[in-house]
Amino acid sequence: MRIQSKKMQQVLSDVLRKYGFSDVDAEQSAALFVQNSVDGVYSHGYIRFPRVISYLEKGYIKPEAKPSVEGSFGSIERWNGNLGMGNLIAKQAMDRAIDLARENGMGCVAIRNTNHWMRGGTFGWQAAEAGFIGLCFTNTQPNMPAWGASDRRIGNNPFVLAIPRKSGEHVVVDCAMAQYSYGKIEEAKLSGRQLPYPGGFDKYGNLTSDPVAIEKTWRVLPIGYWKGSSLSIAFDLIAAILSGGNSVSAVGQLGGDEYAVSQVVIAIDPNRLGTEDEANMIIDRALADLSDSHPVDEGSQVMYPGQRTYATRRENMEQGIPVNEDVWHSILSFLED
Amino acid sequence: MRIQSKKMQQVLSDVLRKYGFSDVDAEQSAALFVQNSVDGVYSHGYIRFPRVISYLEKGYIKPEAKPSVEGSFGSIERWNGNLGMGNLIAKQAMDRAIDLARENGMGCVAIRNTNHWMRGGTFGWQAAEAGFIGLCFTNTQPNMPAWGASDRRIGNNPFVLAIPRKSGEHVVVDCAMAQYSYGKIEEAKLSGRQLPYPGGFDKYGNLTSDPVAIEKTWRVLPIGYWKGSSLSIAFDLIAAILSGGNSVSAVGQLGGDEYAVSQVVIAIDPNRLGTEDEANMIIDRALADLSDSHPVDEGSQVMYPGQRTYATRRENMEQGIPVNEDVWHSILSFLED
Repeated sequence: MRIQSKKMQQVLSDVLRKYGFSDVDAEQSAALFVQNSVDGVYSHGYIRFPRVISYLEKGYIKPEAKPSVEGSFGSIERWNGNLGMGNLIAKQAMDRAIDLARENGMGCVAIRNTNHWMRGGTFGWQAAEAGFIGLCFTNTQPNMPAWGASDRRIGNNPFVLAIPRKSGEHVVVDCAMAQYSYGKIEEAKLSGRQLPYPGGFDKYGNLTSDPVAIEKTWRVLPIGYWKGSSLSIAFDLIAAILSGGNSVSAVGQLGGDEYAVSQVVIAIDPNRLGTEDEANMIIDRALADLSDSHPVDEGSQVMYPGQRTYATRRENMEQGIPVNEDVWHSILSFLED
Repeated sequence: MRIQSKKMQQVLSDVLRKYGFSDVDAEQSAALFVQNSVDGVYSHGYIRFPRVISYLEKGYIKPEAKPSVEGSFGSIERWNGNLGMGNLIAKQAMDRAIDLARENGMGCVAIRNTNHWMRGGTFGWQAAEAGFIGLCFTNTQPNMPAWGASDRRIGNNPFVLAIPRKSGEHVVVDCAMAQYSYGKIEEAKLSGRQLPYPGGFDKYGNLTSDPVAIEKTWRVLPIGYWKGSSLSIAFDLIAAILSGGNSVSAVGQLGGDEYAVSQVVIAIDPNRLGTEDEANMIIDRALADLSDSHPVDEGSQVMYPGQRTYATRRENMEQGIPVNEDVWHSILSFLED
C-alpha cells in the first residue's frame, strides 16, 4: 500500500491540528514526518507518528510551546525547548545556527528540555540545502550499556554530519552510536531473520547476530565496541553542559519515557574561507575516487553517504510512500472522534 | 627499560634541533611526543619519532616552516601548514581556536598542507586544560576500504572530543574510524595473538580476528561497519573543503607517503551560556551514574573516556616511560654523527 506524500501531509497535519498545534506548526511538523517517510526513513517518519501522539496525550510534548532563548554569546546560543515538538524546535534551531554562521562563519544552538527530533538527518539535510556544513547530535534515554557494562546507562545518541554540494546531491551521514536501533532488532525478530552483523551480546556474554538473544539481555552493541561507547558518553556531556539540560542519566530518572532531552546543532559556512567552486571540485574529485572503489560484490557500486536517498526519494514521490496498513489505519483513527 | 620523561625530552629535543628546528620548536614538539608517551600512547609518542625523522630527511616535514593564515571570517580561520611539523601546527591551531572561542563562544581553525599530528587526543586535552570543549579531526592517507569495497580509498580519519572538568579530570575520546590501527594489527601478529574482536576481512570475505588473515587483504574494518565508513568520508570532506586542502584521495596521489593532510580543530566555551559549577555538576552526576554501571567482569569498573590515562600518566611520571630498547637506541643513534 502506498500513500501519496500530499495525502500523508494532509492527514498528519490534520491530526496535529486536532491535538492542539497551530496551522503553521501542524503543517511544518507534518512536512518533516512526510519528508522522512519520502526519504525512506519510515521508522522516524509516519511509523513514529502514533508514539508522538501518545506523548502529546501524556503531556510530554506540549503542542503550543515555543522555544525560548536562555543565553547567547557571539556564535553560540542556549535554548529552552519548553517541551515543545522536537522536530519543529530542531528545525528552528538549525535555521538560527545557519543565521549565526552567516554572521560569524559558524553557529551553534544547544537546546535543553526538548523532545525527540525524529530523524536527525533532517537537520543535516536542512543545513546542506542552505549551503552549510551541518553537525548535529542529541542525547536519548538510557538505552545501551557502556562498554564493559551489562545495564543500560548511556544513550545511542545519534550524530549527523552534512556537506553541501552545488548540484544538490549533498553528502549526509546520520548514525546512532548503537550498531542497530531497537526498531531494526525488532524487525529482524519479527521476520525471523538474523542481523547481518553482530548487534549485541547473548546471556553468555558472547557477541550475537540473533535478535531474540539480544532482546533477552538488551546488551546492544555500540559501534566500534569501546569507541562508540566513548563517543556516546562525550556527545551526551557536550549536549547537556552546553544546553544546561538533562544528561542521558537525568533523562532516565524521568520515569522511563523519553522526553526533555538535550541537543546541539552546528552550522559552518564552507564558502567564507574559500569559494564554492573550490569546495565542489574537492568534493567531486574525492567522491569520484570513492565511486571507483572495487566493489566486494561484483556489479554493485560503492556509494557516498546519503546517495541512496535520492533514488528512494524519487520513487516515493512518484509512486507514493509505502506504508504498513495497520500503522496507517491507526494514524487515520486519530481523526475519528 | 624505562626512561625518565625529562631524559626523553632532552634526547628528542636535541635530535629535533639537529634536524633544523629552532630551540623553542624543538622543545615544544619534543614535549608533545613525551606527553603522548607519558600518557601511554607510545605508538604516537616516542615510537613514531623515527618515522618523523625519516620524513624530515625526505623533506616532507619542513623544520623551519610556519603556518600562515589564508582566510579568516568571524570565528573561523583557514591556515596553510606549509608542510611544517604536524604536532606543532595543530597545537598552535588549537590555541587560536581557543582564542576565537573566547571572543565568539566558539572557534574553528582548518589547516591544509600540514603533517601528521601524532596523537589527536593531545589537542583535545589541550582544549580541556584551557577549560574548553575540543573537537578535532584529521584526514590521512587512504588506508581503509569504504564499506562494500575491497581496495583502500578512505582514511581512518581520527576524531577527538574533549570535555573539561574543574577537577582537571577531563573526559577525552580519541578514536580512529578504523576498528584497529595498523600498529595494533601488527602488534597482535608479532605476538601471535588474535585481535580481541574482528578487525577486518579475510580473503574469503569473512570477518576475522586473525591479524595474519587481515594483513593478506588489508580490508580493515571501519567502526560500526557502514557507519564508520560514512563518518570517515564526511570528516574527510569537511576537513578538505574548510581548509581548501587535500582530501584522502588527493593525499593518496602524492606517492604513498602520508603528508600534506587536512585537519580541523574546534573549541567551544562551555561557560558562556551557563556557569562552570552548573557544567561540573551535570558532568559529575552523569559520570557517577556511569560509574555505577554493573560491570560485565566482576570486580572491574566501568570507566569514562580518558579515565585510564591518569593512572598511566602517574606511573610513567614516577617510574619513567617504558620503552622498547631497539626503538630507543635507534632514537639515540640520531644524535651520533
